[in-house]
Amino acid sequence: MKNFDINEDPHRRFNPLLNEWVLVSPHRAKRPWQGQNETITTETLPKHDPTCYLCPGNVRANGENNPNYEESFVFENDFAAMKQDEIIFEEDIKHTFFKAKPEQGISRVVCFSPRHDLTLPEMEIEGIENIIKTWQKEYTDLGNIKYINHVQIFENKGSVMGCSNPHPHGQIWAQSSLPTQVEKTQNSLKSYFDKNQRTLLQDYLQAELRTGERVVIENDHFVALVPFWAIWPYETMIISKRALNKITDFTAEETNAFAVILKQLTIKYDNLFSTSFPYSSGIHQAPTDGLEHPEWHFHMHFYPPLLRSATVKKFMVGYEMLGESQRDITAERSAETLRQQSDIHYKLKKK
Amino acid sequence: MKNFDINEDPHRRFNPLLNEWVLVSPHRAKRPWQGQNETITTETLPKHDPTCYLCPGNVRANGENNPNYEESFVFENDFAAMKQDEIIFEEDIKHTFFKAKPEQGISRVVCFSPRHDLTLPEMEIEGIENIIKTWQKEYTDLGNIKYINHVQIFENKGSVMGCSNPHPHGQIWAQSSLPTQVEKTQNSLKSYFDKNQRTLLQDYLQAELRTGERVVIENDHFVALVPFWAIWPYETMIISKRALNKITDFTAEETNAFAVILKQLTIKYDNLFSTSFPYSSGIHQAPTDGLEHPEWHFHMHFYPPLLRSATVKKFMVGYEMLGESQRDITAERSAETLRQQSDIHYKLKKK
Ligand SMILES: O=P(O)(O)O[C@H]1O[C@H](CO)[C@@H](O)[C@H](O)[C@H]1O
Ligand SMILES: O=P(O)(O)O[C@H]1O[C@H](CO)[C@@H](O)[C@H](O)[C@H]1O
Repeated sequence: MKNFDINEDPHRRFNPLLNEWVLVSPHRAKRPWQGQNETITTETLPKHDPTCYLCPGNVRANGENNPNYEESFVFENDFAAMKQDEIIFEEDIKHTFFKAKPEQGISRVVCFSPRHDLTLPEMEIEGIENIIKTWQKEYTDLGNIKYINHVQIFENKGSVMGCSNPHPHGQIWAQSSLPTQVEKTQNSLKSYFDKNQRTLLQDYLQAELRTGERVVIENDHFVALVPFWAIWPYETMIISKRALNKITDFTAEETNAFAVILKQLTIKYDNLFSTSFPYSSGIHQAPTDGLEHPEWHFHMHFYPPLLRSATVKKFMVGYEMLGESQRDITAERSAETLRQQSDIHYKLKKK
Repeated sequence: MKNFDINEDPHRRFNPLLNEWVLVSPHRAKRPWQGQNETITTETLPKHDPTCYLCPGNVRANGENNPNYEESFVFENDFAAMKQDEIIFEEDIKHTFFKAKPEQGISRVVCFSPRHDLTLPEMEIEGIENIIKTWQKEYTDLGNIKYINHVQIFENKGSVMGCSNPHPHGQIWAQSSLPTQVEKTQNSLKSYFDKNQRTLLQDYLQAELRTGERVVIENDHFVALVPFWAIWPYETMIISKRALNKITDFTAEETNAFAVILKQLTIKYDNLFSTSFPYSSGIHQAPTDGLEHPEWHFHMHFYPPLLRSATVKKFMVGYEMLGESQRDITAERSAETLRQQSDIHYKLKKK
């Protein structure tokens, strides 16, 4: 019998946002990998690609021409997962097992800039601020539509994340219902707030800043950290220091500080394996249902799949799908590794 | 305004096992795919591969020699996610946010047969029955260990599912706690049973058999169907007709019928895209905590990633990670497509 050592012994950690457990196997990081390797494109992209349907001036799938945009550019997704049509629906209470209801929504694509080759870490702070302003505008505009109660801003980056076009872009899916993960998060935030009159993330952030172990970057207004309960090897969260509700609450200073931390975090990510680091990222913030949401605290998740190198990812399969999420390195070790990465992008160093 | 048409309009469906919603976008199946294509190995595998650490007689990572096994063969995973060591642990109640506790467990690998080249759909019924008997023995043996309260039997098939060795094999992770997904399922099953005195899946199965829409295969003892709330394009579930608790409750007839339906379902899967169909599959059944579990009803999940062809998979990324699971074809259409597949394996037809 030995005493529990969180850095060595298999254990479970609790995620208070989703209200669920995660399996951590620190000792397993040494396991050899004989499985699939991801392919990475190392070709240098042109500034403008005439065959890209996202570049300025080019033709899209629906036949429309993109304008010659100069900053970020937003358009409706040509193959949206939801439609704006209003649907007549009478709930069929007889169906215990076949419960379904129509969902109204709007999907938009946000091209980060005219440049086909410029990802977030390579952009100027000003350009990133411009993306943040675009997100603010979309959150407001979409949120103002009567039937839209939630606006999900996200980015899929890299072909390994199902991204089908390398032109840096994100998406926005706005809809009537709260999506499953957001609803779970809201329930946790609300029950914490009701009990403590402070947001869960406010107190969590204090606790994290006190130990510092999992903090990757801190500036005046935001902190990027590897959450204690992270499931992806290099998962991070950016949390605002102020308990602000939503992206439209940012002061000008906060907009700048958010742009800076976004750039710094994604530079560290790229430097980790000297590759354009793939991930899905997305913002969780107050719904646009017209109600007060003092429990909500702005944060952004980064879920990157890579585990050991530019080509070896963590597979969330089998046990993870049927049982629970499992990770091989501890959050503390990942945070340390990320912290150690240079703040200068590897491509600039090579020059 | 139009009336809701579940075959055409975007909607959400409710999963009563996990108690969560899923987004369905029937109209989106026509979306063109310009993203990543998976690589598939079409090379014919040898019956015995001298470099395979799972083949009979060969040496494993830990230096041990596999016996010259003739049916299925079980060994402890050389890189287990959990360890058997007993750990001393005092719960630290001060930690609101840093909740962790040690987890004890055992991981085993189950080689399906000595044959390096024979996947489930290509095996004889007798060989599959032998695997089922191995699962029964493992469920019993592991379940009898004092600190083991849950035995997760699963298979990762195909390199796209993170499977690092093509020799057909599954895994078993047995542990002290109920994994997250199983705990959620158990909560749903229990509250249904407490209310109705019948298992949730008993009544669900009746409802499915009445409509028939989502049924893929039915025999005397088991039904394979695409659940109403499926998230993966060709996700299925095998449910026992009898409300049996666990795999060790099978009669000899049921063991045979389960082998038959496993073979038939995986043949249909392989025939769908004329490829060795990748998936993660796993059995959900009563925990081994020594308590009575009348709410539990044996079932097996199949989570296959392919969407349109042997090389185009569904990416559960971005919106799915941050918001909720989303699918492009309806469960009804997938079930129909699977039903239409031949019962003879495509490799046999070619000969
Ligand atoms: O144990 P394996 O086959 O090496 O590993 C595979 O299955 C495990 C259990 O589903 C996962 O945790 C790993 O990410 C996956 O690569
Ligand atoms: O909309 P895209 O980029 O074509 O598609 C990608 O992102 C979507 C939203 O996360 C996912 O539903 C798709 O599976 C993925 O391939």
